[in-house]
Amino acid sequence: MSDEFDAVVGKVRARASPTDDERAQLQRVADAVMADAEAAIADLPVEAEVVQVGSTARGTWTAGDRDVDVFVCFPPSIDREALEEYGLAVGHDVLPDGREEYAEHPYVVGEREGYAVDLVPCYAVENATEIQSAVDRTPFHTRYLQERLDDNSAAEVRVAKQFLKGIGVYGSDLRTRGFSGYLTELLVLEFGGFRAFLEAVADWHPPVRLDPDDHGSETFDDPLVVIDPTDPERNVAAVLSETNVATLQHYARDLLAEPRVSLFTEDDPCPFEAADVEAAVSQRGTTPVALRFAAPDVVDDQLWPQLRKSLDGLCSELDRRGFEVLRSAAFVEDDSGKPETLDTESRGRDVVLLLEFAVAEQPAVERHEGPPVHVREHASGFFQKYDDNSEVAGPFIDGDRYVVERQRAFTTATGFLSSAAVYDVGLGQRIESALENGYEVLVGTDIAALADGFGVDLASYFDPKP
Amino acid sequence: MSDEFDAVVGKVRARASPTDDERAQLQRVADAVMADAEAAIADLPVEAEVVQVGSTARGTWTAGDRDVDVFVCFPPSIDREALEEYGLAVGHDVLPDGREEYAEHPYVVGEREGYAVDLVPCYAVENATEIQSAVDRTPFHTRYLQERLDDNSAAEVRVAKQFLKGIGVYGSDLRTRGFSGYLTELLVLEFGGFRAFLEAVADWHPPVRLDPDDHGSETFDDPLVVIDPTDPERNVAAVLSETNVATLQHYARDLLAEPRVSLFTEDDPCPFEAADVEAAVSQRGTTPVALRFAAPDVVDDQLWPQLRKSLDGLCSELDRRGFEVLRSAAFVEDDSGKPETLDTESRGRDVVLLLEFAVAEQPAVERHEGPPVHVREHASGFFQKYDDNSEVAGPFIDGDRYVVERQRAFTTATGFLSSAAVYDVGLGQRIESALENGYEVLVGTDIAALADGFGVDLASYFDPKP
Repeated sequence: MSDEFDAVVGKVRARASPTDDERAQLQRVADAVMADAEAAIADLPVEAEVVQVGSTARGTWTAGDRDVDVFVCFPPSIDREALEEYGLAVGHDVLPDGREEYAEHPYVVGEREGYAVDLVPCYAVENATEIQSAVDRTPFHTRYLQERLDDNSAAEVRVAKQFLKGIGVYGSDLRTRGFSGYLTELLVLEFGGFRAFLEAVADWHPPVRLDPDDHGSETFDDPLVVIDPTDPERNVAAVLSETNVATLQHYARDLLAEPRVSLFTEDDPCPFEAADVEAAVSQRGTTPVALRFAAPDVVDDQLWPQLRKSLDGLCSELDRRGFEVLRSAAFVEDDSGKPETLDTESRGRDVVLLLEFAVAEQPAVERHEGPPVHVREHASGFFQKYDDNSEVAGPFIDGDRYVVERQRAFTTATGFLSSAAVYDVGLGQRIESALENGYEVLVGTDIAALADGFGVDLASYFDPKP
Repeated sequence: MSDEFDAVVGKVRARASPTDDERAQLQRVADAVMADAEAAIADLPVEAEVVQVGSTARGTWTAGDRDVDVFVCFPPSIDREALEEYGLAVGHDVLPDGREEYAEHPYVVGEREGYAVDLVPCYAVENATEIQSAVDRTPFHTRYLQERLDDNSAAEVRVAKQFLKGIGVYGSDLRTRGFSGYLTELLVLEFGGFRAFLEAVADWHPPVRLDPDDHGSETFDDPLVVIDPTDPERNVAAVLSETNVATLQHYARDLLAEPRVSLFTEDDPCPFEAADVEAAVSQRGTTPVALRFAAPDVVDDQLWPQLRKSLDGLCSELDRRGFEVLRSAAFVEDDSGKPETLDTESRGRDVVLLLEFAVAEQPAVERHEGPPVHVREHASGFFQKYDDNSEVAGPFIDGDRYVVERQRAFTTATGFLSSAAVYDVGLGQRIESALENGYEVLVGTDIAALADGFGVDLASYFDPKP
């Protein structure tokens, strides 16, 4: 089995390693970008250091990735406004056709000889605990890893990244909430290789705490805690979800038990056609209700937390009203086929909040418990409010309390979701305004219409994998 | 208002007080029964004392009651078998047409000049803590009260009893779980009158503990605790339900706020006709399911606890399976019109377990959570059990656990209640065997058929009062 495992990893390692040509070409492009950046800095009234960061700086990128990340590190003495101004000046100078993106502050992204180039300004702070902006940490991470990685461990990192991609948990974006590149590299270094990492993971009992530099000063309420070697107060795995930790555990065991290359390959399920959706809904006998609407114009890292918050809010409120949710999901239309130069809204992608109900109907009446009879004033107020009200049954007494059976505000989940009552739920702010612009409600087998645009999401939903 | 209250109580007091003629006639009958009992004892090889007990012995019966309770107290030295033999001998001698009933041991009940006579053997123990049988306490209770009641307090007791009857909480039988006569008398003595009793009750914050003789040695987990003056280890109100305490509080406030004679009158609601039941079910939009079957041949004090246990068991199990119960009730057919000489079964009364569902259907699939993924062995077992099972969706991972959506055993509450699965529920033993003899399942508006036999129960159920 060990041989089998090694054979599989050997194949993946070979595929994931960039060729010498690929390395040389990438470095040539990166060097050219950095030289241009240094030239641009010469025109500015401040000094700045240009550094290459990210996996392509550390030799841990997987073959085929074509990303060049270059940071321009300004002295901490300049203010935020100057940083932004100088940063954009350098960016536009180096990438004349680039466009601005915005994280904590704006930066320029563009293309050079087929490589995606990010040119990001940051502060050159003394150490990572003094950062003024989240990106200031990145050069420290790169330096820390460059000092510790060698050719072999870099190759192991590439295998680990490829595995995490294959099982769908790679990326610290807020849609995925998975493993960042930096986290993956730290973990492989911590355990001394891909296989040792997997073997440890297979036996994890979260919460798991690792502290490579043995300097952690905080506690965290996360399933995996990896103290940043460059910052004792930071958990590198803060964004990682509990589900993704468990998913990694599952596939770690799976790969160790039955090594195979397919686990290193991302493959979307075969998209569901409308007929597949109809068949799934009929077979399950549930009542799915989908809200479909135009995505608000925000980046994915803002969109996904708001979608989740909205979905949680709706599910809790409907559950509270007796409409039992079996499962729920948010889908965002893939816009990869549309020109990147368009802003999000113009790209016109739709989002879907899907709530699948086990119970989508309730009777006309609901139980409403009043105060304990012995709380005299409050109890008498309750009794008087409902006594002689022909709309309610009761008040009667059950145990120590008054109880009435009163008319429900909503007897169907669809009724609630189609009403203005949805805005009383704690929705994400931009989702709330997006819904106010109008949304479509699809119920039962009518959600089959979503196969056009969300076929892969529906396949994953109705045929879920770990 | 005080005048109004006094006027109402005055009227009730006048109606509830037996006339001098009624008193004299009752005492004549009681004396004759006791004389006959003493004559019968003379033929036995042991001594025994004859005492009159109960409300007619204490002058606290309400006008119209025609009960004579006579106890024959044997020396504690004789064994249980002898007690039963001698007791029955005296009983049959005094009441030649009487029949045997069975509480903790058998006794004879019969009729004398239109009075219902109970002739009960007991042990003449030194004090109530040494009792060998529950009935041994009764003479102590009678003696305790006789020493403390006068004409006025006896009249107040009669008013209190009439009130408790009027609001449906009088009687320590296990159907009612209300106030016994002894408890009522102790409470009126404790507070010094009917009105003072009501005023105290209106402000009670259960649990309430009273200890008239200030000698209680035990704690009890009951809403009302009244330590028996003749036994420091006994709560006289042990059988009283929380609902009945709250009901008394409600009506105490009601009577004080708006004194009226009608609250002292028991009146069954107007029975529901089939059409009323149909209208109620339609208006509520619920799914009532009724199990109707022949009552097992047990006395009411055995029947009711078993009915409640069965109903609780069914409700919990159905709720666990996702079938939400809005309310439930047990009905026992009134057999008062049938000859008392028949045994219970031959009297052929039916019972009904009614479960009214807010949710009576669930989809084909249900969520089934497995172990946390990190519990490696258990988790792998779960995964292997369900993996490649085309009947289930999943296993997938949610949070730290494996989850599958599997086929439900029952998709309707009616399906469950019509199946042998009901016998896996914790039912009362005699209810279980009664169901095994066959039962009818009525669903939805079909329960209207119950109007024939249970019209009053259905009226109380669908138009519930405190």
